[in-house]
Amino acid sequence: MAEHAPALSPQEAQQLAEDAAQAMWSRDHVAQAMGMVRHDVKPGYARLSMAIRQDMVNGHAICHGGMLFTLADTAFAYACNSYNQNTVASACHIDFLAPSHLGETLVAEAQERALGGRTGVYDVTVSTAKGKTVALFRGKSARIKGEVTASFATA
Amino acid sequence: MAEHAPALSPQEAQQLAEDAAQAMWSRDHVAQAMGMVRHDVKPGYARLSMAIRQDMVNGHAICHGGMLFTLADTAFAYACNSYNQNTVASACHIDFLAPSHLGETLVAEAQERALGGRTGVYDVTVSTAKGKTVALFRGKSARIKGEVTASFATA
Amino acid sequence: MAEHAPALSPQEAQQLAEDAAQAMWSRDHVAQAMGMVRHDVKPGYARLSMAIRQDMVNGHAICHGGMLFTLADTAFAYACNSYNQNTVASACHIDFLAPSHLGETLVAEAQERALGGRTGVYDVTVSTAKGKTVALFRGKSARIKGEVTASFATA
Amino acid sequence: MAEHAPALSPQEAQQLAEDAAQAMWSRDHVAQAMGMVRHDVKPGYARLSMAIRQDMVNGHAICHGGMLFTLADTAFAYACNSYNQNTVASACHIDFLAPSHLGETLVAEAQERALGGRTGVYDVTVSTAKGKTVALFRGKSARIKGEVTASFATA
Repeated sequence: MAEHAPALSPQEAQQLAEDAAQAMWSRDHVAQAMGMVRHDVKPGYARLSMAIRQDMVNGHAICHGGMLFTLADTAFAYACNSYNQNTVASACHIDFLAPSHLGETLVAEAQERALGGRTGVYDVTVSTAKGKTVALFRGKSARIKGEVTASFATA
Repeated sequence: MAEHAPALSPQEAQQLAEDAAQAMWSRDHVAQAMGMVRHDVKPGYARLSMAIRQDMVNGHAICHGGMLFTLADTAFAYACNSYNQNTVASACHIDFLAPSHLGETLVAEAQERALGGRTGVYDVTVSTAKGKTVALFRGKSARIKGEVTASFATA
Repeated sequence: MAEHAPALSPQEAQQLAEDAAQAMWSRDHVAQAMGMVRHDVKPGYARLSMAIRQDMVNGHAICHGGMLFTLADTAFAYACNSYNQNTVASACHIDFLAPSHLGETLVAEAQERALGGRTGVYDVTVSTAKGKTVALFRGKSARIKGEVTASFATA
Repeated sequence: MAEHAPALSPQEAQQLAEDAAQAMWSRDHVAQAMGMVRHDVKPGYARLSMAIRQDMVNGHAICHGGMLFTLADTAFAYACNSYNQNTVASACHIDFLAPSHLGETLVAEAQERALGGRTGVYDVTVSTAKGKTVALFRGKSARIKGEVTASFATA
């Protein structure tokens, strides 16, 4: 989006998105501890996956809603920080559609729906690797001060 | 609420809530792994706490939104299963109000706002131990088949 | 979606969607009173428009959020009733992105995101005729008893 | 709340809330057209009512969700503008719990749940006059430039 990166070519915008993602990842203890994998980050977009482990399920081997949310929220974070401007979640909504189980891999794909001023809206679809939609997530972002890579340098 | 436990005295309803909570807890790998503490469970109500650990924060020592959500969602689950009828989250909404930090303890208090037929609405307030409100969560519950303690027995 | 209309050809499904829409429309006092126009209804989809009138704005000539919501909610209703099974809203979420003004025409486009069992999720985008996105709406539907056209007959 | 009205006594804060409400009301075409009644406005609080008319229901005499939302949203607006600082809705969520019917009167009570910086969270409960809860609404507010009474003067 031109207004967010007025002087960038598509290649530069993509490079910035990757640099921001790399900076976030290196300090993202939660994503690392949960075994998330970062597949793709582009301006306004991110796709991550996570295998459902024993410590993420209840007694019926069904994935905990909080773990699903955390995956979706993480994809949202990578998408909305892809312009290298520090951005946080101000509110999130999640609809749980179907259970997912121990051993399945979840894929979260985040896409920008709107961005204007300091706020944006991002939709995240969480599916199993076989394509069953497990949850739909919508997050509202708020830009704050600073740059992602800059804050990395001092973190 | 009389419709959910028509023949129960207040003491019996409380005992049922505690039995259901105990059954859930014993198979709740996520709550245990995250170090949650169960302080109080009553019919339609639950209060839990959790200390923010290193593996729950980002590079700026701020608690990850997914960890906050997971605490709130867990309090919601204990409140909406307190009638010993298996109940799941169908949708959740969370507003993030203020950051919380490594070393702080978060308290989540879940209260029933409405319950009719198979669905209910629960509000959860997440605060620091010092009383700062960190997040407001609202969850919609859907009752499914089975009893909490019964499903425990066979889990 | 085959599970909702197992024996229908695409033409039959489309005809059913149009019949259901016509039945709803004839008793939809609110849509008529607000001057909504029904442009397109297909299985799981609806597109409506509405001109912003004097009685829909505040003192600064900005459209009232409730009027925007009502338009989005109506598009949602036509989309989720397009299988001719009576369906109601159980919850809705709306993000307001930009103001719209007296004299502008709003277009609401509703699309099904998920449908399983008795519940579905629909996204509605509300834009001005010039293409500015004004609001994003997400509705959760719940199927109840009866058919749309049948209930029309007895209404 | 002291941070929002540092120099005001409780009486002054109440007077300001009433002045802001009066200024809003005089230009609120929607509330007037829908026959809303303003019962009480205090700092961070508002209570309104509305009788369900023929033009607010569908063919089964059930109140349209958009009309319910508009009532709740209006109560929210009066509550969040009660400090006389122009404030708009950035997002709203509504859970529909039970139907309401032609001829019933709906009461919407809005209460502040959180307020910090430029954003707030308000809960609105919509009930029938007999006390049945019909909907639960949660709105997020964003403060913008200007004062309510001042903008009234120039409206």
